Amino acid sequence: MPGPIQSLERAAAILRLLAGGERRLGLSDVASSLGLAKGTAHGILRTLQQEGFVEQDPVTGKYQLGAELLRLGNSYLDVHELRARALVWTDDLARSSGEAAYLGVLHQQGVLIVHHVFRPDDSRQVLDVGAMQPLHSTALGKVLAAYDPVAHREAAESEWSALTARTLTDAASFEEELALVRARGWAADLEETWDGVASVAAPVHDRRRMPVGAVGVTGAVERVCDGDGVRAGLVAAVRDCARAVSRDLGAGRF
Amino acid sequence: MPGPIQSLERAAAILRLLAGGERRLGLSDVASSLGLAKGTAHGILRTLQQEGFVEQDPVTGKYQLGAELLRLGNSYLDVHELRARALVWTDDLARSSGEAAYLGVLHQQGVLIVHHVFRPDDSRQVLDVGAMQPLHSTALGKVLAAYDPVAHREAAESEWSALTARTLTDAASFEEELALVRARGWAADLEETWDGVASVAAPVHDRRRMPVGAVGVTGAVERVCDGDGVRAGLVAAVRDCARAVSRDLGAGRF
Repeated sequence: MPGPIQSLERAAAILRLLAGGERRLGLSDVASSLGLAKGTAHGILRTLQQEGFVEQDPVTGKYQLGAELLRLGNSYLDVHELRARALVWTDDLARSSGEAAYLGVLHQQGVLIVHHVFRPDDSRQVLDVGAMQPLHSTALGKVLAAYDPVAHREAAESEWSALTARTLTDAASFEEELALVRARGWAADLEETWDGVASVAAPVHDRRRMPVGAVGVTGAVERVCDGDGVRAGLVAAVRDCARAVSRDLGAGRF
Repeated sequence: MPGPIQSLERAAAILRLLAGGERRLGLSDVASSLGLAKGTAHGILRTLQQEGFVEQDPVTGKYQLGAELLRLGNSYLDVHELRARALVWTDDLARSSGEAAYLGVLHQQGVLIVHHVFRPDDSRQVLDVGAMQPLHSTALGKVLAAYDPVAHREAAESEWSALTARTLTDAASFEEELALVRARGWAADLEETWDGVASVAAPVHDRRRMPVGAVGVTGAVERVCDGDGVRAGLVAAVRDCARAVSRDLGAGRF
């Protein structure tokens, strides 16, 4: 079997580079960041530009990601069975809970948000579809790490940065937390990712009983929690939603 | 100057193929659609899969677009200056007009929606960010074709399918329409794209006075229009929004 195609791997590395950090880079920056000869980097960038994956600022000459990625990303969502099945249920979840609802899947070392329903209160909110969240601190991430062995391995191998004073940053506490998630069937993030923000999530399973994603709500800790932690009604709503999506995906009811 | 890199062009063609039509394709379908040897197509698909641009269904073996495209598409939006400047203004436009607001840019042969604010009425709506709209029938598309010579050429060269009974499908009527758009400074789509739906849009200019996008609202024709066509108040709101975004981009006020 032939090995991977080098020019493609390099093109993907350039796109990843432009997706993180500085985001507008000159040819020299791209070449030196990836250890490529300038001519090599230029050839790849020109082809990426021609295909719409990269755009070049006419004034500064710097490169940035291109519009074709947005179009293809949207097409990815169109064909996403889990997301399609979850649309109506997450809408109902946001309405009934009064909080923002999210659907996430494992991608690389984190949770990729594939659907986001705004909190139904007419406030200004920023869409998180396509954004990544950490596995070790979010409710969605903990659910994935608890139920999906691949996510568990990714979480164990990722950097456990302390995002707030409450983030779990050692393996032992995290494993204990995951055991609790499995025992209860849901996960919570109590100001472990953002100060003042709490979330709760539950797993979605497909017809082969594989964990294929997590669904949850996120909001101000004052609304999400009462004296005993996450409000029981919110946990019930999230778990109901996760069960409904799983059933729509063909998961058995028993 | 070296030519484009063939394996990259082929990879882009595979992604475009998976983004349209069937969307889940086997190796043979991909190879025959693009006139590639199976081994060649397989090598590209395997590398695309390894990089997260393509996913393979474990049951059917068919390929579809991968999650990395959604992540990169989101990063594209993060660095999009026009969109960033337009966020607040389009939010206000949706609120004041009571209709859905859109921001579009020219991409390939159409309008790429880079921002979409839902109609503020709590109804269930589907996000159109990343979706493409035709140049010849939508208000956003007409604005781009009227002000951007590249968009004009793309519109002239594209297929003018009759989406409704009202779609303009001949060059002469379209040019007449564009002259009207330039004379008035805004464009309308009166059930030319979707039956029952009308929209109005105006151009956004940057600091070099270049047309960089179009902003507009879309809604039921009964709300958008009165006896004399598009309601004057709606036209004013859309043009105010386009001017505000242009000013934020550094366009001169005079």
